Amino acid sequence: MRKEKEKETLGLKIIPLGGLDEIGMNITAFEYGNSIIVVDCGLSFPDDDMLGIDLVIPDVTYLKENADKVKGFIITHGHEDHIGALPYILKDLPAPIYATRLTMGIIDRKLEEHGLNGRIRQKVVKFGQTITLDKFRIEFIKTNHSIVDAAALAIYSPAGIVVHTGDFKVDYTPVFGDAIDLQRFAELGKKGVLALLCDSTNAERPGFSPSEKTLGPTFDQIFEEHKNTRLIISTFASNVDRVQQIINCAYRAGRKVAVEGRSMVNIIETATKLDCLQIPENTLIDIEQLKDYPEEKTVVIATGSQGESMAALSRMAGNNHKKLSIGPNDTVIFSSHPIPGNEKAVTKVINDLLRKGADVIFQDAPHVSGHACQEEIKLIYNLVQPRYAIPVHGEYKHLKANANLAASLGIPKERIIILSSGDVLELDMEHAEVTGQVPVGDIMVDGLGVGDVGNVVLRDRQHLAENGIIIVVLALDQASGQLAAGPDIVSRGFVYVREADELIDEARAVVQFTVERCLDKNIFDWGKLKSSIRDELTEFIWKRTKRRPMILPVIMSV
Amino acid sequence: MRKEKEKETLGLKIIPLGGLDEIGMNITAFEYGNSIIVVDCGLSFPDDDMLGIDLVIPDVTYLKENADKVKGFIITHGHEDHIGALPYILKDLPAPIYATRLTMGIIDRKLEEHGLNGRIRQKVVKFGQTITLDKFRIEFIKTNHSIVDAAALAIYSPAGIVVHTGDFKVDYTPVFGDAIDLQRFAELGKKGVLALLCDSTNAERPGFSPSEKTLGPTFDQIFEEHKNTRLIISTFASNVDRVQQIINCAYRAGRKVAVEGRSMVNIIETATKLDCLQIPENTLIDIEQLKDYPEEKTVVIATGSQGESMAALSRMAGNNHKKLSIGPNDTVIFSSHPIPGNEKAVTKVINDLLRKGADVIFQDAPHVSGHACQEEIKLIYNLVQPRYAIPVHGEYKHLKANANLAASLGIPKERIIILSSGDVLELDMEHAEVTGQVPVGDIMVDGLGVGDVGNVVLRDRQHLAENGIIIVVLALDQASGQLAAGPDIVSRGFVYVREADELIDEARAVVQFTVERCLDKNIFDWGKLKSSIRDELTEFIWKRTKRRPMILPVIMSV
Repeated sequence: MRKEKEKETLGLKIIPLGGLDEIGMNITAFEYGNSIIVVDCGLSFPDDDMLGIDLVIPDVTYLKENADKVKGFIITHGHEDHIGALPYILKDLPAPIYATRLTMGIIDRKLEEHGLNGRIRQKVVKFGQTITLDKFRIEFIKTNHSIVDAAALAIYSPAGIVVHTGDFKVDYTPVFGDAIDLQRFAELGKKGVLALLCDSTNAERPGFSPSEKTLGPTFDQIFEEHKNTRLIISTFASNVDRVQQIINCAYRAGRKVAVEGRSMVNIIETATKLDCLQIPENTLIDIEQLKDYPEEKTVVIATGSQGESMAALSRMAGNNHKKLSIGPNDTVIFSSHPIPGNEKAVTKVINDLLRKGADVIFQDAPHVSGHACQEEIKLIYNLVQPRYAIPVHGEYKHLKANANLAASLGIPKERIIILSSGDVLELDMEHAEVTGQVPVGDIMVDGLGVGDVGNVVLRDRQHLAENGIIIVVLALDQASGQLAAGPDIVSRGFVYVREADELIDEARAVVQFTVERCLDKNIFDWGKLKSSIRDELTEFIWKRTKRRPMILPVIMSV
Repeated sequence: MRKEKEKETLGLKIIPLGGLDEIGMNITAFEYGNSIIVVDCGLSFPDDDMLGIDLVIPDVTYLKENADKVKGFIITHGHEDHIGALPYILKDLPAPIYATRLTMGIIDRKLEEHGLNGRIRQKVVKFGQTITLDKFRIEFIKTNHSIVDAAALAIYSPAGIVVHTGDFKVDYTPVFGDAIDLQRFAELGKKGVLALLCDSTNAERPGFSPSEKTLGPTFDQIFEEHKNTRLIISTFASNVDRVQQIINCAYRAGRKVAVEGRSMVNIIETATKLDCLQIPENTLIDIEQLKDYPEEKTVVIATGSQGESMAALSRMAGNNHKKLSIGPNDTVIFSSHPIPGNEKAVTKVINDLLRKGADVIFQDAPHVSGHACQEEIKLIYNLVQPRYAIPVHGEYKHLKANANLAASLGIPKERIIILSSGDVLELDMEHAEVTGQVPVGDIMVDGLGVGDVGNVVLRDRQHLAENGIIIVVLALDQASGQLAAGPDIVSRGFVYVREADELIDEARAVVQFTVERCLDKNIFDWGKLKSSIRDELTEFIWKRTKRRPMILPVIMSV
């Protein structure tokens, strides 16, 4: 697959191995000579047509083929689409991990779950600190995002400096820690930056993303207006700052806080341990203790703001929660925006909550996003003044919108490069060129299996899902070559079959006739027999039902 | 199911048989004495979890049980969620249909497709006209909606007048025909209205829905700004007014218009025949003729604005269209808002179009909806001043928002009634009470089968979709009771199985061991054998893969 180049190398290669399409697994390799560093290593959640799949991870064949070159994984922040594939990839490629404190705390838990703790070298890096990995030096730069401790990277290579924003926004008044280190972006820009890889997620949105802190007063107002009801607030588990603001409000209002949902409990534990979250004493209570307090003196922080069917909020709304039921004395606050594709699931939860008499409020409007909007993106371009603009993190329409912004700032079109996953971009200050392709793709994880479900299996699942299956079983007598038993017909997912079903009886007759005709013509080859059965039965079923179930003939010899 | 009442009837019964939940099939029965009239008879499109299902139609068991009482179907307008189930329901319940002109034109085509033309009595009704059906008189009132010829109904019964808005908006400057007949709503209000059944779709949206005509100037501007490219405009086929405006603009700009997509071609034919659409001579061309004109002198009106995978636009974007391919000289205009649930599909089409170099424009912002927003709903309540407010057409959250509007206008809470599908509401000027329930539900249509796919089949399809199937086949010797052949193992949609697959080999060994142990213990009962195989194999597969494929043992006797 890998195209060997003949001409002299330009020095630095940038190879996105995922993240530039609808399946957003962020992972980018930087290669110079015999050194490769990998920025982020994310997973994705399956598309609707990936039936039965739990997770999707990137194909890292290229890294495995060059395992000796891989010096380490540099992680920008602790979201699943940037860290989630680590445990899967590290099993075959046990390179060291570099990340900031909370990011590493979240990774720790992940490695532990996969029995990898202690087997991988991990180094916590501070903002402003630079690590050296062979030909590369990497500096971590403070940014803001919807999770604490997010970093941009300045990647120093012999070919020049590449700035990778990671996922970022500009928040001058963050809830925790410092604002984004704009001065450092400016300093790097002054030095001269070869390329800027900039977050494109919100490149279609004009203006500035409001500060996370703007939500504080709206929480206060909600608490004030709903003094007499219990409050149930749902948001992303990883949004530690949002959780901090809810806890602050609850403390001020003299309410106890219970936390519900495994991922929420985990992240709060990790963030508290690392001092990224300050919980006043006697504020947190166990979900079991809720009954010991008046409802209007409690707040529940719950997972499920995206309508996820197994999350805490959906279970409460659907009467499937063991410890908590929703009633007219509840105010449920959605403190997050539905991610595209989740709208219907969220609406279903809302309908269920309203039916139970609860009040439902959307708190996050205008949407406080963790990603830079157009003015923020322009600001970063202006500070960094890169030679090449390489939009990253987004679907094609986002990358295109980011490219349009870069063009509007006067960056010449030939220096704005929209890459596809797998492209090998070689560049220096004079040239930039896609010189080859490496294999990339979606490796599907189903249960314990990684990659054993491929397109053939998925196509079969799709076929089974839409039409069901008809299994035809028959036994041939080895000696005589004649039917010894069957044909029997069993179906699943096709139609509801009653006893002595006419359609099935006729189908059996069709198969019997087909088999006997073949045997009469001395066709004993099982492959030919099976395909005759499949063809005749498919046609019969289509004529009668206008459906195309999977037809699976099984022949035995006795 | 149907609860028999003992106490005296209040006279009028209103029985919604669908349409008050996420599955929006609109159909409502009105019953008085021995008369039933049915307002609308819609279908719905399947939810994501209704695998392989083509359509959903309402369960009308109640109507069938009272077939002698059913005097007719009154149809408010020609959208699928109001007319789509007619051909299915009419087969068993051939009552006459009453509708306005375009609505009946669309119904005609539907009946023809189902071979029902000529077998059902159909009467075209004019606005202002009243028809008498036994105990009921029904008056058709002009409204506006995103399809021409939409009607509200005044239903006169001995218990009082019920006003049913149908789907409506208030458009003072419609593209075709008159504005909504607000005077008539006012007159009825003066007379005294027992109940108002009012469209709730946009009850959460403040303000007024802009007039359809406001889109005219934005089309002109788009045509002006893209003089040098071909224009491909996608919208709902049924939005005849939108199509009219596009054709008007094209004519003014000297462009030829080609129409692509079966539903679009059909509706344009029907609307033109009924003079609801005026197409200037020499404007329409066949898609084949596009090549005979310069690209910048053509417009293509196409289906697929919702990202439907088989529609014209998706096929063009995905290179699957035989007659038209997209390139940098195309401007693609989405002239409709994505329906919740379709966002991801629409985005995928946009990404594909942008990748081909096309320019993509969203024209319908602010969203010109066909449904009344809050101020319009309040206006109708104010004019009609009903005794009872019964929100209809929407999910629970919409009905609730409509109820909140009614309450804000001073209608007492006990006279605002949110019904569920199947509720039997009995009412007169003094009382309103839900006195019973009739059976309702989603009848699934798959191919030619209506109702033969139920929950068992769907559960199987879900199981097959997520985990695939393992089929175990074996033959027992009738005489000896011992294994004559097999066990053989075949799987589909489970994992990719290589030749001599270890997992499958071990699975076969597990089954063989299980069967032999049973036979040794003189267990010959096929039911018991099968359940032992299923249990042992399920456990083995779970341990090894953490997956639960469907296990289907088939035993033959030879």
